[in-house]
Amino acid sequence: MASSNNSGETVQALNGGSADLGNGKKQIFLNAFDMSTIGHLSPGQWKNPADKSATKRTLNYWIELAKLLEKGGFNALFLADTYGGYDTYEQSLDNCIRRAAQWPMTDPTIPITAMAAVTKNLSFAITASTSFEPPFLLAKRFSSLDHFTQGQFGWNIVTSWKKAAFKAIGLENPIEHDERYHQADEYLRVLYKLWEGSWAEDAISPDPANDSYADPDKIRTIKHQGKYYTLDSRHIVDPSPQRTPFLFQAGTSSAGSEFAATHAEGIFVSSHSPTVLKPKIEKIRELAAAKGRDPRSVKFFGTYTPILGRTEEEAQAKYEELKKYASTIGGLVLVSGWTGIDLSKVPLDQELTAADSVEQHKVRSMLDAFTTTSEHVPKWTPRVIAEKAAIGGLGPVGIGSAKTVADDMVRWIQEADLDGFNIGYVTTPGTFEDVVELLIPELRRRGIYPDLPKGDEQRTARERVYGEGQRRLREDHPGSVYKYDRYQEDAP
Amino acid sequence: MASSNNSGETVQALNGGSADLGNGKKQIFLNAFDMSTIGHLSPGQWKNPADKSATKRTLNYWIELAKLLEKGGFNALFLADTYGGYDTYEQSLDNCIRRAAQWPMTDPTIPITAMAAVTKNLSFAITASTSFEPPFLLAKRFSSLDHFTQGQFGWNIVTSWKKAAFKAIGLENPIEHDERYHQADEYLRVLYKLWEGSWAEDAISPDPANDSYADPDKIRTIKHQGKYYTLDSRHIVDPSPQRTPFLFQAGTSSAGSEFAATHAEGIFVSSHSPTVLKPKIEKIRELAAAKGRDPRSVKFFGTYTPILGRTEEEAQAKYEELKKYASTIGGLVLVSGWTGIDLSKVPLDQELTAADSVEQHKVRSMLDAFTTTSEHVPKWTPRVIAEKAAIGGLGPVGIGSAKTVADDMVRWIQEADLDGFNIGYVTTPGTFEDVVELLIPELRRRGIYPDLPKGDEQRTARERVYGEGQRRLREDHPGSVYKYDRYQEDAP
Repeated sequence: MASSNNSGETVQALNGGSADLGNGKKQIFLNAFDMSTIGHLSPGQWKNPADKSATKRTLNYWIELAKLLEKGGFNALFLADTYGGYDTYEQSLDNCIRRAAQWPMTDPTIPITAMAAVTKNLSFAITASTSFEPPFLLAKRFSSLDHFTQGQFGWNIVTSWKKAAFKAIGLENPIEHDERYHQADEYLRVLYKLWEGSWAEDAISPDPANDSYADPDKIRTIKHQGKYYTLDSRHIVDPSPQRTPFLFQAGTSSAGSEFAATHAEGIFVSSHSPTVLKPKIEKIRELAAAKGRDPRSVKFFGTYTPILGRTEEEAQAKYEELKKYASTIGGLVLVSGWTGIDLSKVPLDQELTAADSVEQHKVRSMLDAFTTTSEHVPKWTPRVIAEKAAIGGLGPVGIGSAKTVADDMVRWIQEADLDGFNIGYVTTPGTFEDVVELLIPELRRRGIYPDLPKGDEQRTARERVYGEGQRRLREDHPGSVYKYDRYQEDAP
Repeated sequence: MASSNNSGETVQALNGGSADLGNGKKQIFLNAFDMSTIGHLSPGQWKNPADKSATKRTLNYWIELAKLLEKGGFNALFLADTYGGYDTYEQSLDNCIRRAAQWPMTDPTIPITAMAAVTKNLSFAITASTSFEPPFLLAKRFSSLDHFTQGQFGWNIVTSWKKAAFKAIGLENPIEHDERYHQADEYLRVLYKLWEGSWAEDAISPDPANDSYADPDKIRTIKHQGKYYTLDSRHIVDPSPQRTPFLFQAGTSSAGSEFAATHAEGIFVSSHSPTVLKPKIEKIRELAAAKGRDPRSVKFFGTYTPILGRTEEEAQAKYEELKKYASTIGGLVLVSGWTGIDLSKVPLDQELTAADSVEQHKVRSMLDAFTTTSEHVPKWTPRVIAEKAAIGGLGPVGIGSAKTVADDMVRWIQEADLDGFNIGYVTTPGTFEDVVELLIPELRRRGIYPDLPKGDEQRTARERVYGEGQRRLREDHPGSVYKYDRYQEDAP
């Protein structure tokens, strides 16, 4: 799986100095991708003595991780979350539990302030669903997170699809897919009203002589009466540094793309092939442009799992070692969940073809995601797919020296038009340490990675992406129509 | 307001050594009572240059507070919370906002891990409502908090009554009072099922040779179908040190007392007079006994605000200084909210009597709460009440040297049958520092306050109250019937 430099344009970026990654992009954003659970994208590594993912229930794990990421100059720590396990494989949660494939799971909001207390220039983005709680509760919690992290907070908006999650919440059936996105759109608009539209910038104006701390006339009561939500309240938290947290979204379905093109500032994508991603990214940028947004202000982050060594051989040896601990069934559990195909129904070594299946569309989409141009697999069987997915999930795995992996990442950026990566880990600690010690220095030598902040410099999550001063939503973001001074009482 | 030592029994406790506070109680529990807002129980002090409550949106405030409380040997930091402001006074939120009377407000769960990371023997208890979110969400969040605090987490269960909160959540009308408690009772039972009944103690049994981390057969799927809630899920978090957090409750209404006697391990009470509290506490202990619980295992914490000096004169001078900053209207806002009486309808200096009012019951109850035996107020007007409430809220204020205040607290314990106090602050920093430097050493000299833990000693929140080893619910607590080994599928 070591990457090949098969793009002529890459050479420029390799020579160091002020490289141009194409489309005006000069620098790569790296997020560390983790989850408050055991087998995140590489199930089975808990058996590896080097791996400490079973210690994620302690603060020490998170504090040490945050310090490492800040030391290396990561953009953000992104923490996925879910309310249910993967129960597509065998229509049961049993193997999800047994293989610790993203189960059990703690709440990612909880360790954030312990990490924020020891860092200054690292963002924290978490996944949260629009399907399960009233918007006011989330608005209050996230404003608090943005205050306490001093503007380092981001939100990965999901609408949730797992049956298990809906049963845990007490809803009989998942809301239908497209309907969920309509609901999510209204949810976001309620949040913009609270975050952007409720408080004037100068609502807090302490005036001790008049026993007056804040001016109620400058804090608007939001009256929202929509299809899904009703609310009649001021926002209970004064404006945090970013007001609206930096907004991420994942998913490239039709309804998902429309939603992402409207609301997302950062978009997570996963595929084994940049050529599969390229048209999806292009389409979302076009949709964003059609909505009046600068298409380049939508930043795309591809999942990418590096296995780094000081030499090619060292990296390859690491990969061979890691494979020993990978859980094939854990991989089947995750892929079945992600694709909606119960892979237990197909013999482990029988080739999967779209034509054979009653679920042609799903199988084709899965095979597309796994197929790369540089690799020739004789036949895609559940076993081959599971073993591939058990190291790095649905994203590519780059194996090699820092130079080789950097070349591969540059190729991805150029071929798929990415802006950065969500770096998955195989073991923790392990992968992120290697990125900090080997990969980031290589990217910096090429002039395509930000320097560490100087002295007291502290930027918010949004400033780190859009530049100093851009703490609040960009003017071309649809949330901006809800900003206090231009708020329309009859806005949707 | 300096207290008098009017109880003969107090003398024993004053002489140091192994004092007996009565009813077998040997030691006082002190919680620090705070809220992630500006004017908590003493509105207006934000104008006092000594007060830094407007910095509560930063982690530094909470980290310094937690360190101080641990240094002093406080039992817990208790953080109140709400989803709405006080809008009874003038039927509007305007003066609540203007006087910063518990508004705005951040989420108390957020700064907890930043505090837990710098402490070891301090509990964190927060208020959360049973009325606004599905139990599964709260179960996951609180299990996470109990894991990350290493068993230092407590929950003050509330059912919520503020109209403003229901309007923010999107519910047209508050649920009727008694109905709320029925709903809360079912909510708790769903939580016990998840926390106590879902996971066997040995469900996690890593077996690398068989690629097996946890045994799905030892993790029960909870199937709950009740009047208010439906759930069909395993708990998504493995057992935390306490499983069920230490349970607090406030409120001495009829439905509230029934609920508290069933579920609460700690109960918060507020009154200006121990003789008003005594029968209420007695009644709840009787109710608890009737349910098969040891009545002494229910611990009562009275709100108490000390104003301490090295001498009586110094304390009195502090009090006079603090009064300068107290907000009378802020006091009216809070008392109107707490009592349900809109005090704006009564002229500021007109005497309030129960007979005059259309709300006789509410007014009598309010006057009862304010009336003390040791103090003679010529007439209870809104102004007198507001000025009293603007320092220390509905609880007593003890002014004097450590000796005087300690005497007063001992008297309260003996007269009302309390187990400890929720210490309110007037300024922060200020009040809690004085408690650590002056009051706690005095209580320790009398042998009625726990020593600091030795060396590596670390107890959970529940162990600190019930003794070493009692990390889980006591056997006589009704949540214990849901424990894994004795779980009945048809339990309510």
